[in-house]
Amino acid sequence: MANALVVVAQGIEEMETVIIYDLLIRAGIEVTLASVTGRQVEASRGLKMVANVDLNQVIDEAFDIIICPGGLPGAEYLRDNALLKNLLINQHNQQKWLAAICASPAVVLAHHGILDNSQATGYPSSEEQIPNYIDEDVVVDGHVITSKGPGTAMVFALKIIQLLMGEVQAKEVAATALIKM
Amino acid sequence: MANALVVVAQGIEEMETVIIYDLLIRAGIEVTLASVTGRQVEASRGLKMVANVDLNQVIDEAFDIIICPGGLPGAEYLRDNALLKNLLINQHNQQKWLAAICASPAVVLAHHGILDNSQATGYPSSEEQIPNYIDEDVVVDGHVITSKGPGTAMVFALKIIQLLMGEVQAKEVAATALIKM
Repeated sequence: MANALVVVAQGIEEMETVIIYDLLIRAGIEVTLASVTGRQVEASRGLKMVANVDLNQVIDEAFDIIICPGGLPGAEYLRDNALLKNLLINQHNQQKWLAAICASPAVVLAHHGILDNSQATGYPSSEEQIPNYIDEDVVVDGHVITSKGPGTAMVFALKIIQLLMGEVQAKEVAATALIKM
Repeated sequence: MANALVVVAQGIEEMETVIIYDLLIRAGIEVTLASVTGRQVEASRGLKMVANVDLNQVIDEAFDIIICPGGLPGAEYLRDNALLKNLLINQHNQQKWLAAICASPAVVLAHHGILDNSQATGYPSSEEQIPNYIDEDVVVDGHVITSKGPGTAMVFALKIIQLLMGEVQAKEVAATALIKM
């Protein structure tokens, strides 16, 4: 069974977080929502969500993918967490899946040098902070998957499902959730 | 300022709930997330969310719109709550905005007779429980707005914004959230 770590914080974008969480669970992926700012977080528009764990509880576990939703100041809290920085860099060095959307490709991945040699996308206003910016809804380069924002969160999640679980599973999830691909 | 009541329960669809909540907040609408099963709810795929209030705290307030997200058994908890039934029927009798998506047009609104004289849509499997089913992503008939499911939740929320706040505001929210209309 594939497993995913979705990292959250105060000020994370709630719509992106929940779209990713929900669709991956529908695909049969084991999803752990881990917070770097305490179990209950108040997301970017005020929604209160409760994470499954604090990040420090899962730093010794292996995840097939680590996913950073966007939102501000959420992405900055992700960027500034030393445990998460180590997890992301280890995952990157092992060439295992990493994904980020909206503010996080620039604020988290590019900040840690993870996008130095990858094509990537992100929220349009972050174009100059992303070394090799591509203007597409979802960009996959090697083991790094990036996307633009709330409106592309569904196709981003479906791309992750396709890469981890296969095309058939991605299409089935899209059909059941009535998402046009 | 426009205000919206979004009702939730154990087993509510988290993606629909949060997409509606997030986009309406972005549009400047005051959103109250009210639960009929206790402040903290575990949504249909396991996400824990904390409502702003218990429904009984706001039954004397007037809302420009009452919105029922879908998900099972969430929609059934909404259907079986007597306070919510009264709120929905009062809103309907005053011809004020009512909206439902996914399982809720059939399970909640049709069950209470609110769709007897309206065209409406809902999750495709609920077609036979909706008296005048229309196969469209979003249907507006009089003061009743209905939609199909997770994949149509963004256009559903944008339609609500358009009706409450105007076309310009809806387009601005869509543009900022990178949603193609």
